[in-house]
Amino acid sequence: MRILAVNMKAYDSAFGKRATEIARKVSDLSSTLGRVRIIIVAPLLNASRLSGLYEHVFVQHVDSVGFGAFTGYTPVSAVRLEGIRGVMVNHSEHKILYRDLQKIIGEAKREGLEVLACADTPQEASAIAYLGPDMIAVEPPELIGTGIPVSKAKPEVITGGVKAVKLIEPSIKVLAGAGISEPGDAVKSLELGSEGILVASAIMKSPDPFKEIQRFASAMEEFEEPPTLTSY
Amino acid sequence: MRILAVNMKAYDSAFGKRATEIARKVSDLSSTLGRVRIIIVAPLLNASRLSGLYEHVFVQHVDSVGFGAFTGYTPVSAVRLEGIRGVMVNHSEHKILYRDLQKIIGEAKREGLEVLACADTPQEASAIAYLGPDMIAVEPPELIGTGIPVSKAKPEVITGGVKAVKLIEPSIKVLAGAGISEPGDAVKSLELGSEGILVASAIMKSPDPFKEIQRFASAMEEFEEPPTLTSY
Amino acid sequence: MRILAVNMKAYDSAFGKRATEIARKVSDLSSTLGRVRIIIVAPLLNASRLSGLYEHVFVQHVDSVGFGAFTGYTPVSAVRLEGIRGVMVNHSEHKILYRDLQKIIGEAKREGLEVLACADTPQEASAIAYLGPDMIAVEPPELIGTGIPVSKAKPEVITGGVKAVKLIEPSIKVLAGAGISEPGDAVKSLELGSEGILVASAIMKSPDPFKEIQRFASAMEEFEEPPTLTSY
Amino acid sequence: MRILAVNMKAYDSAFGKRATEIARKVSDLSSTLGRVRIIIVAPLLNASRLSGLYEHVFVQHVDSVGFGAFTGYTPVSAVRLEGIRGVMVNHSEHKILYRDLQKIIGEAKREGLEVLACADTPQEASAIAYLGPDMIAVEPPELIGTGIPVSKAKPEVITGGVKAVKLIEPSIKVLAGAGISEPGDAVKSLELGSEGILVASAIMKSPDPFKEIQRFASAMEEFEEPPTLTSY
Repeated sequence: MRILAVNMKAYDSAFGKRATEIARKVSDLSSTLGRVRIIIVAPLLNASRLSGLYEHVFVQHVDSVGFGAFTGYTPVSAVRLEGIRGVMVNHSEHKILYRDLQKIIGEAKREGLEVLACADTPQEASAIAYLGPDMIAVEPPELIGTGIPVSKAKPEVITGGVKAVKLIEPSIKVLAGAGISEPGDAVKSLELGSEGILVASAIMKSPDPFKEIQRFASAMEEFEEPPTLTSY
Repeated sequence: MRILAVNMKAYDSAFGKRATEIARKVSDLSSTLGRVRIIIVAPLLNASRLSGLYEHVFVQHVDSVGFGAFTGYTPVSAVRLEGIRGVMVNHSEHKILYRDLQKIIGEAKREGLEVLACADTPQEASAIAYLGPDMIAVEPPELIGTGIPVSKAKPEVITGGVKAVKLIEPSIKVLAGAGISEPGDAVKSLELGSEGILVASAIMKSPDPFKEIQRFASAMEEFEEPPTLTSY
Repeated sequence: MRILAVNMKAYDSAFGKRATEIARKVSDLSSTLGRVRIIIVAPLLNASRLSGLYEHVFVQHVDSVGFGAFTGYTPVSAVRLEGIRGVMVNHSEHKILYRDLQKIIGEAKREGLEVLACADTPQEASAIAYLGPDMIAVEPPELIGTGIPVSKAKPEVITGGVKAVKLIEPSIKVLAGAGISEPGDAVKSLELGSEGILVASAIMKSPDPFKEIQRFASAMEEFEEPPTLTSY
Repeated sequence: MRILAVNMKAYDSAFGKRATEIARKVSDLSSTLGRVRIIIVAPLLNASRLSGLYEHVFVQHVDSVGFGAFTGYTPVSAVRLEGIRGVMVNHSEHKILYRDLQKIIGEAKREGLEVLACADTPQEASAIAYLGPDMIAVEPPELIGTGIPVSKAKPEVITGGVKAVKLIEPSIKVLAGAGISEPGDAVKSLELGSEGILVASAIMKSPDPFKEIQRFASAMEEFEEPPTLTSY
């Protein structure tokens, strides 16, 4: 499955009724897709609530703590108890220590949660690949939110990231991110060897976020892989 | 109204079905009380969900950010959009800068949210009183989670905290916290001049958290204030 | 004594030979002044070295740790062992928790070190006054480094800060800071009731930092207080 | 050269006269050694001062900032201006983000400074090896300060760390650390394939730190490598 991961960030459309509407509509859309899996990466504040509306919700951050006296922190195990499918960690806007990444990924695996970890560079993607998350999104921070898509501005980050990760652990899916504005950028990312995208502002800052999700999903669904794939 | 604020922290009983059960039962209990308001201080991960079950839910922490590209952070305004009643900030286990406290309290007021701010000492309580939150809980960190109640071990922290806060802003309610283990400790805190308590482990680590809440609520409901109150 | 506190920050002129030259020349200048005390607020990296050249050196930050296994952190007690006169803490660019401020000020007093604590607002100045540092510098963060002097743009922050602090503890000296560009701004700050200034970029980004220090010191030395002072 | 890196941490012996004495005596001792290079990893507060007494001083931490308005932070370039030979970063007690490690190592290379980076695990050592520091010290955090030497308790961390690093970049020297108490532990670490050790409490908490350095240096000087080396 190709991955369309929508990072809701903390945009106003990520909360309240607008978030509810996005999750409901994505749930319906999702059942019509055969090749694309839409993941909603939700804020801490409503990831649990949105998980009641759509199956493939991840939360935007967790902390490397267990259950206990940790006011305002989020244990990995709590994510499972709240019925949330997975966690995203180490996003460019919320970096964590490698040490904590190691603990969180280990704990998430024991809990049966999926992990999407973010990396700034192919080097960081390699570093994270050793820890065995399910997915790694490579996003050059200087392009995030700019509207200049990584697939055009720095295609070598996608190809380099894919190569770096697959060398260490071929089962990890590599997503491309940063500056993705149009469905065509998502397709281009697939052509460059990624297995999906991580997108935020192009969708969440739109007046109709669901409509944008639909456009991206549709383009990614229709994309036909070239007959021969590059092998690593 | 006397305040019984239950900080769920990140105990395992704070998530999933056990949290649901606590919120539901507290909602029922709450309608039977005349003098006590129970506030559930919920984790970020389910504060929104629990707010659907009980009206007086606060979230354990917020960040001093607005809406925008802040992955994994929680804007004050988002709390309102998710229908949550209030925020607790600056807990001993999640201290924030005075600068951020100032921003958060200002923003929460504009959004119509209630604020419960925590202080380690009467001095910090004074410092926070200038910012005008609705409630200040004074908790000596060295007693938190010990089972040695502040009302016995350091009653001067309660009386001193109340005096310090009321001197600056009489409308702020002062709660006592740290080490409160028994309903009698809550009553003692009221006798010392506080207007309620902030309690966590004595309730959340119990095999039946709701039953403990009921015991505390009952003792606080029955407490009769002495005829003459100390004036500040 | 009026205080001219020069925050070297991490400008290139704050390190190596240029820093040495500043400290040496200030030491000479200092002996010619009768009413002005120049404090050099030095980087962690050379505060000890510069203390060998000039008596009134403070370090820009310390940590709330004791001696021990704290790699890369700076105990308050170490400042004394290195022969440094005092510490500046809680600068707008390096905010610390109120809790840590409380510990650091207490520890510094026990060690016989002077403390200059910074505040963003008159409210924060009040909050800090309870902790009893020797000096409080009030600096609206939005003016720092702008060249728009607080004494012109927000004189009420100086007068309000002085009033707020003196109400709690009259022995604390109040300094004004942020955007101070010219010796005239320093004089204006004294006229508004402050007992000195905290200045950085106007001096350290100049091609000849010492010459600027000299100009400020001279203007502050010559300032004659009006015959009647406002009482608080 | 075999590396004997002494992390002074923030022990009381790391400051003032005792630190001066250590640096002076190590400088003398150093000239008598042919196979061992002693590196003193000094606190931020006196790294510059001690660099005037001994050539091979590293500082315990730097920040990923450039020159500018960064009160209390330490730019990499400032380390060079103060005449300090190198930097240690990412110690277990002062972890930094991978992103910052990447910036700092790049900047240090441009400035001609040496870099010693620390790793908790062979996995983190691999992750850091991609960034090309001069040395990597592998230290299981659970053994630091325990007196249980890594060379006995977890020899596989040393052999695994060496193997992991050399696979990526053979020119990086790998040091062993954590719990090293006796000169024999240092020798054992060399036998396991490391090129030196990082040691702290065994030396700095001793009544005579220099004497301990001498004992370690002597044992490491005398160690004869076995005729055939393991190849990677």
